[in-house]
Amino acid sequence: MSLKVSPLAPAAFPAMPPLAGLEVTTGACGLKYRDRTDVCVMVFDPGTTVAGVLTRSLTASAPVLWCREALSQGSARALVVNSGNANAFTGAAGTGSVERTVGAVVDLIGCAPEEVFIASTGVIGEPLPDDRLTSALADLAKLLRTDAWPEAAAAIMTTDTYPKGATRSTEINGTQVTINGIAKGSGMIAPDMATMLSFIATDAALPSAVLQSLLTQANERTFNSITVDGDTSTSDTLLLFATGKADNQAISSAEDPALTAFREALEDLLQDLAIQVVRDGEGASKFVTIDVSGAETPSAARRIGLAIGNSPLVKTAVAGEDPNWGRIVMAVGKAGERADRDRLSIQIGGIEVAKNGWVVPGYDETPVAAHMKGQDIDIAVDVGVGEGAARVWTCDLGHGYIDINADYRS
Amino acid sequence: MSLKVSPLAPAAFPAMPPLAGLEVTTGACGLKYRDRTDVCVMVFDPGTTVAGVLTRSLTASAPVLWCREALSQGSARALVVNSGNANAFTGAAGTGSVERTVGAVVDLIGCAPEEVFIASTGVIGEPLPDDRLTSALADLAKLLRTDAWPEAAAAIMTTDTYPKGATRSTEINGTQVTINGIAKGSGMIAPDMATMLSFIATDAALPSAVLQSLLTQANERTFNSITVDGDTSTSDTLLLFATGKADNQAISSAEDPALTAFREALEDLLQDLAIQVVRDGEGASKFVTIDVSGAETPSAARRIGLAIGNSPLVKTAVAGEDPNWGRIVMAVGKAGERADRDRLSIQIGGIEVAKNGWVVPGYDETPVAAHMKGQDIDIAVDVGVGEGAARVWTCDLGHGYIDINADYRS
Repeated sequence: MSLKVSPLAPAAFPAMPPLAGLEVTTGACGLKYRDRTDVCVMVFDPGTTVAGVLTRSLTASAPVLWCREALSQGSARALVVNSGNANAFTGAAGTGSVERTVGAVVDLIGCAPEEVFIASTGVIGEPLPDDRLTSALADLAKLLRTDAWPEAAAAIMTTDTYPKGATRSTEINGTQVTINGIAKGSGMIAPDMATMLSFIATDAALPSAVLQSLLTQANERTFNSITVDGDTSTSDTLLLFATGKADNQAISSAEDPALTAFREALEDLLQDLAIQVVRDGEGASKFVTIDVSGAETPSAARRIGLAIGNSPLVKTAVAGEDPNWGRIVMAVGKAGERADRDRLSIQIGGIEVAKNGWVVPGYDETPVAAHMKGQDIDIAVDVGVGEGAARVWTCDLGHGYIDINADYRS
Repeated sequence: MSLKVSPLAPAAFPAMPPLAGLEVTTGACGLKYRDRTDVCVMVFDPGTTVAGVLTRSLTASAPVLWCREALSQGSARALVVNSGNANAFTGAAGTGSVERTVGAVVDLIGCAPEEVFIASTGVIGEPLPDDRLTSALADLAKLLRTDAWPEAAAAIMTTDTYPKGATRSTEINGTQVTINGIAKGSGMIAPDMATMLSFIATDAALPSAVLQSLLTQANERTFNSITVDGDTSTSDTLLLFATGKADNQAISSAEDPALTAFREALEDLLQDLAIQVVRDGEGASKFVTIDVSGAETPSAARRIGLAIGNSPLVKTAVAGEDPNWGRIVMAVGKAGERADRDRLSIQIGGIEVAKNGWVVPGYDETPVAAHMKGQDIDIAVDVGVGEGAARVWTCDLGHGYIDINADYRS
């Protein structure tokens, strides 16, 4: 199945600088797709630390279970990602597949097994032909480069219509550091957590516990604040690797003020990638930003925002360019968080539509309908009970989603 | 917008017998629709008791708030339902509209205000032109009949493509009693609770507390076990009226063994109506029955069933006639209930697809794919951790849903 590039795609893949201590390569192993790359390998210098956030699915894939174990020791030497087959719900064979892949990497670069991270994405329930991957590893290792980020982002795609990358330059105590990241969506995108796969790397020197704290916080307001279809993958994996080559001053706590700029840059980069995932939501034709304010807490605001962003009735209204704010009211009501129906206010495209629980006097739908015809839709809701605020991103639900998902396996 | 009758519709509306102590009439008040009935009035004899289940939405409509109050006293003399306008999110005007409608009924039949029940369904956020309704009431009252059930079922429709009715005959301590019911869907159909509007009446003599207990229990396994799109209406209302004219032996407890047959008949009738609502799900082309077993508790099983039934990826696979059981695994994983990935079994159309956490040896997709081409799809999942079981009903998600919902208000 060949998909047209999303109309919401960015103009170009960003220029990603090399990161000291890290090399990347990709290959076409024919795991499922023909005539395209489906494997990405990253090799990190000794001393690289790692942190991660993994799906909370109770039917998590074999690679996710492996990463959960491996993360506990905090160091990384390699990452192997394949697309086309999720190696999920493959029983003991799935575990064997992961172990053989890890073993092949250990043989090649000489590291501990738990320093090898694995991620797989694609069809569920089919055995992964890992021999095609392991037999190609030695040749792939000869092609390692520092500038293969665009190829890496392309190799991990499934129904994505464009590769997703982002880079940020920042500093820790005056030392310049770089953060690069890639991600892939684009179905089963929902919180806990929201992307299927995303891999971030930095040349900063940070202990894994600090990395983990920074990543967990940033993830909450980025990948965990987007939704495409409310479904949660068995394979969601976000990993952050730090090679330490920037040689910045040692940091021992995530609360260290020296991390302020790094923390902001990391969140900004994750938000960039998260938004790229939404903009490539299956069949998306509109990008929707939902701001919720006046909730009891920021988490309550986020849950209300996600209830709006997950509502099929709101999403089909957006697809139909219908400023149907009644459906927004409905979604607020089902979120299960406190809201004052008679103080509820709604803005669409910055235009006040409803205030204090009713449509504004003399409401003129014309400018709101004009906003709905654009590609970027802004919805703001104040639920009138507190100070909690959050921002959530989603896309519309139209015929494109049905086209893709009623025919994905064929 | 004119909609084609759902391909899953029953062959005919059932023959509904008259119920002693109850008369029905309908009218065309032009609240929104032209050239069709949009108001249904039921008048009950003195002594009629009532019970109800209402939406848990925190942005509930003015009629729902009214019913919640009125239910506390347990007796009923009239029901007024309109379609076309939900009278939801209409602030103080919405409350005024309910009060004026109640007042007009009180003037007409001479009862207490809290014996008048009101329900509205349709567009949210537009003021209800209640004068068109109240000014018609006196004329409508002249047309009350005992056999107007089909007209009543038609008058409460919005995007429904066929009227929904059901009847059951049963007995209490040897006295024959009848139960009649009508319902309307068909968007925003999701648990808590699942239908937008359903009105049930019986000639049985039962105190309101007993009615309430019976209704709450039966609702859980019927209307609260169906889903179309996971959205929850601001107007969901299920009311059960008992005129007492069957003159059965007095009952004072819902646990009375004399109620066994009545309890079963009531649940059977609610299930019939709930299934009719799903079979008229917006754009539905397939009816899906999901059986979950092996869960920790029946509620856990129902939550897993609803996670499967609400998953856009499962529902689009059904629309595409794709036996994509990997998506069922995914949905089990996101339900948040305990499941043993390595003991999980899945049957589609009675054919074992996966067992003990993996596809069955020598799996032949041919008969499963043939089952998916039918109109009635059966999915059974055993999650391998306990004895809890539940059945849930849903429909597919295809282009029809998008067609309807991207264009509902126009």
